[in-house]
Amino acid sequence: MSPVDPVALTARLVRCASVTPANAGALEILEDLLSEAGFDCAWADRGGIRNLFARWGSKGNTRSFGFNGHTDVVPIGNEADWSMPPFGAEIKDGIMYGRGTTDMKSGVAAFAAAAVDFVRDTPPDGSVVIAITGDEEGDAIDGTTALLEHMQNNGERMDVCLVGEPTCPDVMGQMIKIGRRGSMTAWIAVTGTQGHSAYPHRANNPLPAMVRLMDRLASHELDAGTEHFDPSTLAVVTVDTGNPATNVIPASCSAAVNIRFNDTHSGESLTKWLEEEVARVRAEFGVEIEMRIKVSGESFITPPGALSTLVANAVTAETGVTPELSTTGGTSDARFVKAHCPVVEFGLVGQSMHQVDEHVRVDHIHQLKAIYTRILKDYFT
Amino acid sequence: MSPVDPVALTARLVRCASVTPANAGALEILEDLLSEAGFDCAWADRGGIRNLFARWGSKGNTRSFGFNGHTDVVPIGNEADWSMPPFGAEIKDGIMYGRGTTDMKSGVAAFAAAAVDFVRDTPPDGSVVIAITGDEEGDAIDGTTALLEHMQNNGERMDVCLVGEPTCPDVMGQMIKIGRRGSMTAWIAVTGTQGHSAYPHRANNPLPAMVRLMDRLASHELDAGTEHFDPSTLAVVTVDTGNPATNVIPASCSAAVNIRFNDTHSGESLTKWLEEEVARVRAEFGVEIEMRIKVSGESFITPPGALSTLVANAVTAETGVTPELSTTGGTSDARFVKAHCPVVEFGLVGQSMHQVDEHVRVDHIHQLKAIYTRILKDYFT
Repeated sequence: MSPVDPVALTARLVRCASVTPANAGALEILEDLLSEAGFDCAWADRGGIRNLFARWGSKGNTRSFGFNGHTDVVPIGNEADWSMPPFGAEIKDGIMYGRGTTDMKSGVAAFAAAAVDFVRDTPPDGSVVIAITGDEEGDAIDGTTALLEHMQNNGERMDVCLVGEPTCPDVMGQMIKIGRRGSMTAWIAVTGTQGHSAYPHRANNPLPAMVRLMDRLASHELDAGTEHFDPSTLAVVTVDTGNPATNVIPASCSAAVNIRFNDTHSGESLTKWLEEEVARVRAEFGVEIEMRIKVSGESFITPPGALSTLVANAVTAETGVTPELSTTGGTSDARFVKAHCPVVEFGLVGQSMHQVDEHVRVDHIHQLKAIYTRILKDYFT
Repeated sequence: MSPVDPVALTARLVRCASVTPANAGALEILEDLLSEAGFDCAWADRGGIRNLFARWGSKGNTRSFGFNGHTDVVPIGNEADWSMPPFGAEIKDGIMYGRGTTDMKSGVAAFAAAAVDFVRDTPPDGSVVIAITGDEEGDAIDGTTALLEHMQNNGERMDVCLVGEPTCPDVMGQMIKIGRRGSMTAWIAVTGTQGHSAYPHRANNPLPAMVRLMDRLASHELDAGTEHFDPSTLAVVTVDTGNPATNVIPASCSAAVNIRFNDTHSGESLTKWLEEEVARVRAEFGVEIEMRIKVSGESFITPPGALSTLVANAVTAETGVTPELSTTGGTSDARFVKAHCPVVEFGLVGQSMHQVDEHVRVDHIHQLKAIYTRILKDYFT
């Protein structure tokens, strides 16, 4: 039996237009492949989302290595802006184009191909688990959490997990992610009293309170960074009033801030801080302020150790590059996996993800499969 | 010949739907009345706007008293919101309803009626000038300035001028305006570099610069007021970004501030101050800032003296109220007249102006005619 070609598998997956929440047959391709290779497959569907759980080896094995990833993709935007068909997986000059080629159908194809070949060629004394969701790019409510719930309900487990998201900023092998900052958003509305610009004492303009609050939030240093994390950041992403009349003082205005925070903070501690700042401005300006907060994810980390060393050594062996252990970037499903077992993320160069003409180097897909294969070998040796 | 009824005249004017720039026959009604009473009438039309100039007495007279006003009105808004026909001039329980009943067809009717009766009953040793525009509520580009240009070109003059705008906040006779604060607006756009909220160091968010600038402008005390003026005020009237994505740092944002300033400042001095504050923030945040400024009017004053005393005495004699000499409120055409001669403003209670169901007390129209008549008598005695 010949090895699984991860490039051909990526192309088959890209041709499924699986824009969240659509699956478009993508996970069934993987189920066929994995079932045929001896994996026990089960569906952990929830909320209209398909989620595939697959295990090679028996449930009770003491050593179990897991892969996590997703087959859903973000929308293509304006198709006319693409120079290649967005679901065509066409290859030109060694580069494959299409939505999901980088994020992350190639990653899923690489670990599925690596796992299938590995269990066939050198059956390990242990289990290999593959958990793939169709809900990562959307609200991620019915995705990896549904897979983890399925595992808990059925006595399934992973000892460690590798998420195959693209992690390298520029060069293949450059970066392993061992954690992520937390992320939260606060929406703030300030209400005063409308009036005429010529008589400001008869009105109560909400904007001076809003700009004072935003200035304080934007200029506050949350922390100076920690051992494994960059400093936390706060971005004022919008302030809006929508008042076209310069002789009118508006009744209300709104704003939103987005915070990316390290392990110095939690969603709760930052909510408390925001509420204190809001109360301060409310008292100073006599305006009404409403705030709505959504914590998308807490910060998490798998401290450098056995798992990150395993992955880093495999990366260096295959690429010659010594990867940085990083906690930068946006959130990922690793935040859910972290509650189950140690988790790190390693994958391709992510430069074109979410963009028009998303693409991947074909040789990188082969290289990624080789890295994943080496990780499996080293883990079970 | 019986006296001119200012209430009937107001009603005739209100029934002309003279929403700027429309005239709808309003000024022709006044031309007929004034011509018949012996006024020399001339049209000072410009830019499609009708403007009526009328003079009783010869051009060379040493004493010349002027009235200024306008017959154009603001739009009615949603007609369904009115409980009376907006151009009906219907009277109910002693109150006349309609657009322009307060601002300021009743004022025009009162001074026209007063002037016609006065020159007929007690022909003065001097001239009475009446200058009425159809462009006060709009851009005021082709209105009173066109009348003043006509006067200059034709050797016409006023020694003093009374603008018949509504000036009383609550009670008839309460307030004479002897000047107005200046007004200016600055539109500010800040441009940075768009980016992802998770990587703020790769972007340059324009909002921190904007909120710092707005906070500084809003919290700066421009002055503590002067002998005849309240403190100058600055209102931040809008800040806008229009960014719905909380994971995106926006590329640009905009804002507008409106300043009402007293004689401590000028449009030029405030422009200089704004430019300094903009330069400071530009240097601190490394953003691009563009600012556009429009000075709608400089502050002006006719210091308390002969004219304000003349008007105040007439008001007290007819109403029993001692009027305050004020410089509050929005701008008016008195700012143009001020370049020609001393000018004060006195008229009705302005509470319902520009609103739905604008209305005027019928007895106030009679009272206003009596006040204007007494002013003319006292001036020429």
